[in-house]
Amino acid sequence: MTDITLAQARSVIDAALVRSHELGTAMNVAVVDAGGNLTAFDREDGAWRGSIDIAIRKARTARFFDMETADLGTMTAPGQPLYGIEVTNGGLVSFPGGVLLRVGDDIVGAVGVSGSTVDDDRAVAVAGAAALG
Amino acid sequence: MTDITLAQARSVIDAALVRSHELGTAMNVAVVDAGGNLTAFDREDGAWRGSIDIAIRKARTARFFDMETADLGTMTAPGQPLYGIEVTNGGLVSFPGGVLLRVGDDIVGAVGVSGSTVDDDRAVAVAGAAALG
Amino acid sequence: MTDITLAQARSVIDAALVRSHELGTAMNVAVVDAGGNLTAFDREDGAWRGSIDIAIRKARTARFFDMETADLGTMTAPGQPLYGIEVTNGGLVSFPGGVLLRVGDDIVGAVGVSGSTVDDDRAVAVAGAAALG
Amino acid sequence: MTDITLAQARSVIDAALVRSHELGTAMNVAVVDAGGNLTAFDREDGAWRGSIDIAIRKARTARFFDMETADLGTMTAPGQPLYGIEVTNGGLVSFPGGVLLRVGDDIVGAVGVSGSTVDDDRAVAVAGAAALG
Repeated sequence: MTDITLAQARSVIDAALVRSHELGTAMNVAVVDAGGNLTAFDREDGAWRGSIDIAIRKARTARFFDMETADLGTMTAPGQPLYGIEVTNGGLVSFPGGVLLRVGDDIVGAVGVSGSTVDDDRAVAVAGAAALG
Repeated sequence: MTDITLAQARSVIDAALVRSHELGTAMNVAVVDAGGNLTAFDREDGAWRGSIDIAIRKARTARFFDMETADLGTMTAPGQPLYGIEVTNGGLVSFPGGVLLRVGDDIVGAVGVSGSTVDDDRAVAVAGAAALG
Repeated sequence: MTDITLAQARSVIDAALVRSHELGTAMNVAVVDAGGNLTAFDREDGAWRGSIDIAIRKARTARFFDMETADLGTMTAPGQPLYGIEVTNGGLVSFPGGVLLRVGDDIVGAVGVSGSTVDDDRAVAVAGAAALG
Repeated sequence: MTDITLAQARSVIDAALVRSHELGTAMNVAVVDAGGNLTAFDREDGAWRGSIDIAIRKARTARFFDMETADLGTMTAPGQPLYGIEVTNGGLVSFPGGVLLRVGDDIVGAVGVSGSTVDDDRAVAVAGAAALG
């Protein structure tokens, strides 16, 4: 298993924060490794405290199912096949903002962003993920 | 960061209970500080025991996202962007009754009320919050 | 079952805070009812945040076993009969500061105090309990 | 209440990691704010995964009782007054490695370090804390 390094994780967060500044948001940004364990985290000044936990869970959720949390969300609505999955694994998050991190073809971890609209959250996570690869 | 004092928290609860008596309800009223930690709490005689936890979580939820829990609720219904957020942060509450506490422009904490209809809960929380500012 | 009223709980807290001021401490004071459920709570300005949870647990622990937490502690040390009991009931506290509340012969609840030395904690809890009876 | 900024939290972690490199250790370093909420975190390559949680809890524990976790530990051994306190607050850590962060006279947060011996952990936390003040 190829795993993310701290240097890579920091570059993801730095790229995410650049995008957050462009958007004028205040974000929590979490990076987990290939095993789903927290590797690096930054909370911008003034970012919501409730988004600390959400950012970490978004990153973990993305890696746990090897897909964007936005994609998981299409399957978790009422009437959909994964309805209620959020209560498993100590709490998952199935709305946008969790994005996989790849180096070449390998998934090395995931980034989770929370602090604004889910569109902004996702945009900042995608910008972070683009720092690798 | 300006934080609430115990004297301010008690004045919030006292004002909330005056409104509760007017409405003929029996409420749980919780005040958290700027960091989301419990500062003061009262349960009126006969108030639901299950609302103790809800009142505290409403207050914390409001501060964690710096908005009324009623406003958060508009985003957490099925099909809305934050569907499922309640399982994060050890359990959030996204229905009315959690209201921010401000002194001037500073958020110094939040009040959460639970024990009746959500409309009553919110009315009592708003009355409590009006004791500051 | 005779249960504590909110007015009685507030009188316990007020008496506890008078004693805390005399001692020059900053305390968290929690009152639970006969069922072990939180009834009233005050955190004095500057009191330890980690003692919020401890004060509530001391009160609940006292009522759960109908004895002072100080007395429970004599049975929970290594080699004693209740060694390890702290991990039950979602977390108990077996050091001093949790004291039963009685009206006449009836146990109506308990008070828990945390924020200083365990001797100070217990002294403030005892002063609070003396407001009833 | 003065609170730590992200820039200050990053400077604490950077200083901690310099010391970790000198010692040849692989550490988890967590910074919490004045309210005990996670602000920044780094896990060095190869650091124990089980120390992620411990580093965060050490930082939170230090702030929750406004003292070094090493000092709390002197009171939590069998026979000591706070024996068993670890089960409160969702899990505390009472061995060395959690150190308060001050700016002038204000406590603005705390740093927690885990990944080596507790002496190394504490040395790295102290080095991190020295970046402020």
